[in-house]
Amino acid sequence: MDTVIDLNADLGEGFGIWRLGDDDALLDVVTSANVACGFHAGDPLIIRRVCAAAVDRGVAIGAQVSYRDLAGFGRREMEIAPEELCSDVLYQLAAVDGVARSMGGRVSYVKPHGALYNRACRDAAQAEAVAAAVAAYAPAHGGPPLPVLTLPGSALAEAAARHGLPAVGECFADRAYTASGTLVSRREPGAVLHDPAEVAARAVRMAREGVVTAVCGADVRVAARSICVHGDTPGAVRLAAAVREALTGAGVRLESFA
Amino acid sequence: MDTVIDLNADLGEGFGIWRLGDDDALLDVVTSANVACGFHAGDPLIIRRVCAAAVDRGVAIGAQVSYRDLAGFGRREMEIAPEELCSDVLYQLAAVDGVARSMGGRVSYVKPHGALYNRACRDAAQAEAVAAAVAAYAPAHGGPPLPVLTLPGSALAEAAARHGLPAVGECFADRAYTASGTLVSRREPGAVLHDPAEVAARAVRMAREGVVTAVCGADVRVAARSICVHGDTPGAVRLAAAVREALTGAGVRLESFA
Amino acid sequence: MDTVIDLNADLGEGFGIWRLGDDDALLDVVTSANVACGFHAGDPLIIRRVCAAAVDRGVAIGAQVSYRDLAGFGRREMEIAPEELCSDVLYQLAAVDGVARSMGGRVSYVKPHGALYNRACRDAAQAEAVAAAVAAYAPAHGGPPLPVLTLPGSALAEAAARHGLPAVGECFADRAYTASGTLVSRREPGAVLHDPAEVAARAVRMAREGVVTAVCGADVRVAARSICVHGDTPGAVRLAAAVREALTGAGVRLESFA
Amino acid sequence: MDTVIDLNADLGEGFGIWRLGDDDALLDVVTSANVACGFHAGDPLIIRRVCAAAVDRGVAIGAQVSYRDLAGFGRREMEIAPEELCSDVLYQLAAVDGVARSMGGRVSYVKPHGALYNRACRDAAQAEAVAAAVAAYAPAHGGPPLPVLTLPGSALAEAAARHGLPAVGECFADRAYTASGTLVSRREPGAVLHDPAEVAARAVRMAREGVVTAVCGADVRVAARSICVHGDTPGAVRLAAAVREALTGAGVRLESFA
Repeated sequence: MDTVIDLNADLGEGFGIWRLGDDDALLDVVTSANVACGFHAGDPLIIRRVCAAAVDRGVAIGAQVSYRDLAGFGRREMEIAPEELCSDVLYQLAAVDGVARSMGGRVSYVKPHGALYNRACRDAAQAEAVAAAVAAYAPAHGGPPLPVLTLPGSALAEAAARHGLPAVGECFADRAYTASGTLVSRREPGAVLHDPAEVAARAVRMAREGVVTAVCGADVRVAARSICVHGDTPGAVRLAAAVREALTGAGVRLESFA
Repeated sequence: MDTVIDLNADLGEGFGIWRLGDDDALLDVVTSANVACGFHAGDPLIIRRVCAAAVDRGVAIGAQVSYRDLAGFGRREMEIAPEELCSDVLYQLAAVDGVARSMGGRVSYVKPHGALYNRACRDAAQAEAVAAAVAAYAPAHGGPPLPVLTLPGSALAEAAARHGLPAVGECFADRAYTASGTLVSRREPGAVLHDPAEVAARAVRMAREGVVTAVCGADVRVAARSICVHGDTPGAVRLAAAVREALTGAGVRLESFA
Repeated sequence: MDTVIDLNADLGEGFGIWRLGDDDALLDVVTSANVACGFHAGDPLIIRRVCAAAVDRGVAIGAQVSYRDLAGFGRREMEIAPEELCSDVLYQLAAVDGVARSMGGRVSYVKPHGALYNRACRDAAQAEAVAAAVAAYAPAHGGPPLPVLTLPGSALAEAAARHGLPAVGECFADRAYTASGTLVSRREPGAVLHDPAEVAARAVRMAREGVVTAVCGADVRVAARSICVHGDTPGAVRLAAAVREALTGAGVRLESFA
Repeated sequence: MDTVIDLNADLGEGFGIWRLGDDDALLDVVTSANVACGFHAGDPLIIRRVCAAAVDRGVAIGAQVSYRDLAGFGRREMEIAPEELCSDVLYQLAAVDGVARSMGGRVSYVKPHGALYNRACRDAAQAEAVAAAVAAYAPAHGGPPLPVLTLPGSALAEAAARHGLPAVGECFADRAYTASGTLVSRREPGAVLHDPAEVAARAVRMAREGVVTAVCGADVRVAARSICVHGDTPGAVRLAAAVREALTGAGVRLESFA
């Protein structure tokens, strides 16, 4: 039987004159592109170009919605009222979906960015606001409810389920895991792995066996349909390419979930 | 035979804690609401609320696209590259259309705001960028091309025609006109009329006869399907209400063009 | 012996075309103006005008520093890194002080705004960042360290003391107090008082006796050198004027602490 | 007799997570750093760091004031009212000067950025607004009026003179000149020179003889106290370093004008 996995990465994270990461290189690696929507990064011209490039290569487009925080790149948690957050998410999702459709594609999933990602994984109110926005958008595009890409078992996954949205789980091949299957905090040594061979081998086990070796040495389950890779440095792009190569070499089919 | 005219006004021009004008009062007067899209005014929560209120009252929703200039309220002309302007317009249009659809409505026309309105009336390159964005958005919503609300005979009307978009002409009941049918500059005395009875009478002639008395005393033609009214002061709302009352009293049917 | 108190209020809280409150009316009431610095409200032209008006009337100018959050009016707490917050505060303080000096005045104290005010009262790290910024600015203006206006006993008051900055306490004549001398949360009924006579009488007791009647009926001490009033509604301005009148009628001298 | 010239370049042109150019490398080359003030680039933390680094190396700090246009990097001309522009310039100048003074330095000159630079060279009203802001700031810092770095003979140079501000002329070693001593437009072929040896040789003639070879082959006078170099690409930094090396090799003393 076929093993299938998705590779997702953040794209279009420049703004105006500034660029972050190598969008073109990443589009050759991933099957899903988390496109910045303009609130933490991504201006309309960048969004348009990255959507066009994703359509050209058959890469799925996700709306990477965020707090409104260009100065902090969406990495600073905010105490935002749920109805404000819901409206902000809806606006961003609508904007990128409309641009994507103008380029012949469409947004086929939603993934929160940075601090909103983390917050919505543990804060029920903000998770609810994000899920409500995605659900509210369904009548606008006439298709089935969009899936939400998040951590398995998170508050956002639960909120998505309440709203009838598929919650798609993701895992991280370059991050250390605890025995209980959560990520080791970035503040601890060894939290991020850098060796391409090791990271690629972990990705293959994640995809084929649904497990990862935790820091304690034991295997723990990671039930994920997508693996997140990064592309903000040349080294990161090489790592992502190594993951892709190892997966295809191991007979894993790369395919978006959306 | 029936005489039909549209009344349009700018709505949703607050931002965050700030408000401008009385949206609720205006929604009782107009048949078309030019909704600020977030670039000169209008945050996602305001957009959502004004779209919901417009849907409730059957008022047509227009995307009032603008330069990105919150500090200047979109009233400062910018030398923006056409592809940037085109992307900015597309993004704003998509965002507000998606929010409107989530509220059970949709954007049914586009009207540039402030300095972009003026610039696109006389600058072929910026007019082309605006029209190209509206045309590019057509596949996104699956409906017919959206009309553009502008001055009759303007560069934007010409660009719209080139792109197969209906150009809908508007006129101004509270502005003085020259003998050649253009607006008297706001810098000249008497450019703006304030007497409700006079403004209302002009609106009736505009709607029923398609003419207005110019400053020279002669009647000039104003071929407009819509009359623009304002609502940023209590006096402006009263003036708009007087225009509506006079029009309906004269047997003119008020109906959106979109 | 003379009883002296300061009245402070937020001013210059518009942005671009938008206005909030009646700056001119408030400048006739207060002795200290907390001037918005551009991060939650206040653009350079507004700052310039309110500084000029404050200088004209001999009202002390304070820099009301904030999180960078125009869309949320600085009312949303942010998890900002201390060195970023410190830099943001320093930038705002420097900008408004420079503008004030160009108008013949100067910034003579600092008061955080909104969510930063609340956060810095209880979060030692953010309080430290604010105080460090104010201390770092001392060499720039060549004068003594600027006082910080905050709640008595707050984390910000402690941080100010560590940096050799005077911490000036303020109290609120229109807010209910608990038996322990803290403010009743705005979410509880009766947290905000609206009767001008009652509020004015409380202000007089605060100034002359240093006490306020708590919700339990007992008198509690409020050691404050300044009373905060608001001006964002016509009613608020009338309330503030009533406070001023009652204080002067009771022989209390109104004078800035700075 | 000594030949003295200044080398200036734009620094601190990142924002939030984004970077542009190599500030550290440039600070080893130039004698004057045009520091972005936050309106087209440069957030408070970046400003603080680049000011600290400039102070460390004895590089003069200039305030590179701009239109408020992060999305367009200040490269889009704006029809801004003179009093708004004057206030915007004053705010930016005050902010960076205050931060610089907190770091042990100070702003010692002003240079407009991008579109404002170009506009202020030919538009008397915007030039006047910029010069008025710099003049208005003089009482704030207590020193002599700050010089303005601009094109010799420009509208800004004239406005500066009217306000008693020194106008310091700059030239461009890597730009082609017309026979009348103006820059060849960037839209024309050959407008920008890329050969380090050629650019360096031109810089030496500019500094020592005050002339440059125009595109027609004739020598034209360029009366400049400063040469502008760029650092936004690795190649640009190498070019700037080549200019510095050639100048010092030719016995030209590098020294800021401020």
